[in-house]
Amino acid sequence: VSTLEEVLASIRPGDSAAAAEAREWQDRLTKPRGALGQLEEVSVRLAALAGDCPPPLPEPAAVAVFAGDHGVHAQGVTPWPQEVTGQMVANFLAGGAAVNVLARQADAAVVVVDVGIAAPVPGDTSALLDRRVRPGTDDMTLGAAMTRDDALAAIGVGIEVAQRLIEDGARCLIPGDMGIANTTAAAALVAAFSGRSPAEVTGRGTGIDDATLAHKVDVVERALGRTTLDIADPIGVLAAVGGLEHAALVGYLLAGSARRVPVLLDGVASGAAALVASALAPAAVDAWFAGHRSVEPGASAALQTLGLTPLVDLGLRLGEGTGALLALPSLSAAARILREMATFDAAGVSEKA
Amino acid sequence: VSTLEEVLASIRPGDSAAAAEAREWQDRLTKPRGALGQLEEVSVRLAALAGDCPPPLPEPAAVAVFAGDHGVHAQGVTPWPQEVTGQMVANFLAGGAAVNVLARQADAAVVVVDVGIAAPVPGDTSALLDRRVRPGTDDMTLGAAMTRDDALAAIGVGIEVAQRLIEDGARCLIPGDMGIANTTAAAALVAAFSGRSPAEVTGRGTGIDDATLAHKVDVVERALGRTTLDIADPIGVLAAVGGLEHAALVGYLLAGSARRVPVLLDGVASGAAALVASALAPAAVDAWFAGHRSVEPGASAALQTLGLTPLVDLGLRLGEGTGALLALPSLSAAARILREMATFDAAGVSEKA
Repeated sequence: VSTLEEVLASIRPGDSAAAAEAREWQDRLTKPRGALGQLEEVSVRLAALAGDCPPPLPEPAAVAVFAGDHGVHAQGVTPWPQEVTGQMVANFLAGGAAVNVLARQADAAVVVVDVGIAAPVPGDTSALLDRRVRPGTDDMTLGAAMTRDDALAAIGVGIEVAQRLIEDGARCLIPGDMGIANTTAAAALVAAFSGRSPAEVTGRGTGIDDATLAHKVDVVERALGRTTLDIADPIGVLAAVGGLEHAALVGYLLAGSARRVPVLLDGVASGAAALVASALAPAAVDAWFAGHRSVEPGASAALQTLGLTPLVDLGLRLGEGTGALLALPSLSAAARILREMATFDAAGVSEKA
Repeated sequence: VSTLEEVLASIRPGDSAAAAEAREWQDRLTKPRGALGQLEEVSVRLAALAGDCPPPLPEPAAVAVFAGDHGVHAQGVTPWPQEVTGQMVANFLAGGAAVNVLARQADAAVVVVDVGIAAPVPGDTSALLDRRVRPGTDDMTLGAAMTRDDALAAIGVGIEVAQRLIEDGARCLIPGDMGIANTTAAAALVAAFSGRSPAEVTGRGTGIDDATLAHKVDVVERALGRTTLDIADPIGVLAAVGGLEHAALVGYLLAGSARRVPVLLDGVASGAAALVASALAPAAVDAWFAGHRSVEPGASAALQTLGLTPLVDLGLRLGEGTGALLALPSLSAAARILREMATFDAAGVSEKA
């Protein structure tokens, strides 16, 4: 397993020659120029990432669901009890959650990682990857959510998991998350790195009512106002207001970039992690593709800050990696078009006058 | 093969009891209520169509690409030569077009049907279904595009193809189209049935420039102004300003509704055909799902008139069935969620306070 320093040192931007080749090739394929819309730009980015045109297919994909708990849960930001984090992890392990259903459809492996659940996970946990750094974060309104060392340890877990999945054959990484109250921490991260106000980026998460939302915005404001955050020190901000699963996702995303394996972002958890990761290595974003536009406003704010356009927009707000899994066929299609479509010359099709 | 009268007589609306059961079941699954957004409503409609909850998976899918030529091509509505229709059909038969690439990814069969190409199709046509009603339509600005009998014959081709695909195991029908100048005929159909002006529903098709677009709008206006069209006689309107592939698609869509097999609409060609078909049998729409939002304005106008919300919005404007193929995984996912996800009770997950 590589260290964070090694991962950061090996991240390079996309290859512009391969991108240019892909653009030119798109214009020779048997369709009007631009007729495949956003898929064409995605295909160009895949070629740039691979440094090759056509790029390889992003298949098979693998999902890592990082689970953690949040001290800020004590502030009453959600009506869901904290024990649901572990119960949902048991559901993932049993194959009954939405992420499992969508991963089966997409032929994607699912690995579930305990990076910081507060309580024991019920049931058979033999398939759970136990990398619990600590039993949940501390309440970020009262002090730092975790130490810098804890954040770094969780980042290391993400790197380890990404590298293991790639060794096992994954050619697309999907970031998944589970953690009751984790949209509160995500909102704090997005506010810090996007420069937007907590009111703009804090959302309803599982579907809280107006009063709870107003309280949640206030909680995020208090967490951010507690101390001076310096985004030139991304790990410091992550430790102050992030979650353990966000930290693991930072490592996971960066490891994908370092190995030039496409990462298909999901909702606000991976968006928040992507902001931290791109602050550490701006070129890392060239490996990332926006899976979907989550209902959560912080997710859109993150994508806009990153300059990424989502593939799917179906009003999802579940996390787990579900939105990215729905987007995976479009990512594959973009590569497949470059690999398999005939050109006007080869097919003997006349071009327009 | 059924007659149009038999097909129309057997179309029934969706089953509201199955829809209610699906809605209730969605609320018991291990996710916050509504967290799967648009997929939840799609799952309810699939249950209503099947009259069963959970509904069957819409797999495997099959695409029928109906190809035809258009007399209105003589009016200069596109810079592409008419021979491209047959050349692209040869490309479909050889497996090199975008629809072939996306169908392979989706494990969907592709059948190519000549319902009215003007010239001989080059190359090996052994796999082409030859149902040429006539070698293209007449110029709709000078007289009816085709006779009523020709329109009915082409509708019969669509019914035959849909029924054959269902016999062969298809559980989702995707309508595809090929025909140089066919967005002009589609715009005329959409204007007639949606009540919108030609300027609102006529688009750039393959990507024409401003001057050609203005001319195209004028051509559509002249075709519609040539005679009095009565949308209470949908076949009459279809014969006056439609294409042979649009007519075949009308039969194809209605046959799907009659057999209660979901139809995943593609772009403006299937949208225009759906407007004709729903004028013949309003309940038929309960079997149709909007695959994607095409760039072509007539496509959005058609979906709005039909009350359907697209699954994919990626700026595509290719036709052939490509947008629907990209949406297919989302349609499948909606059914799979109802079939495979665990409930709160079964998974031992606590509900919110």
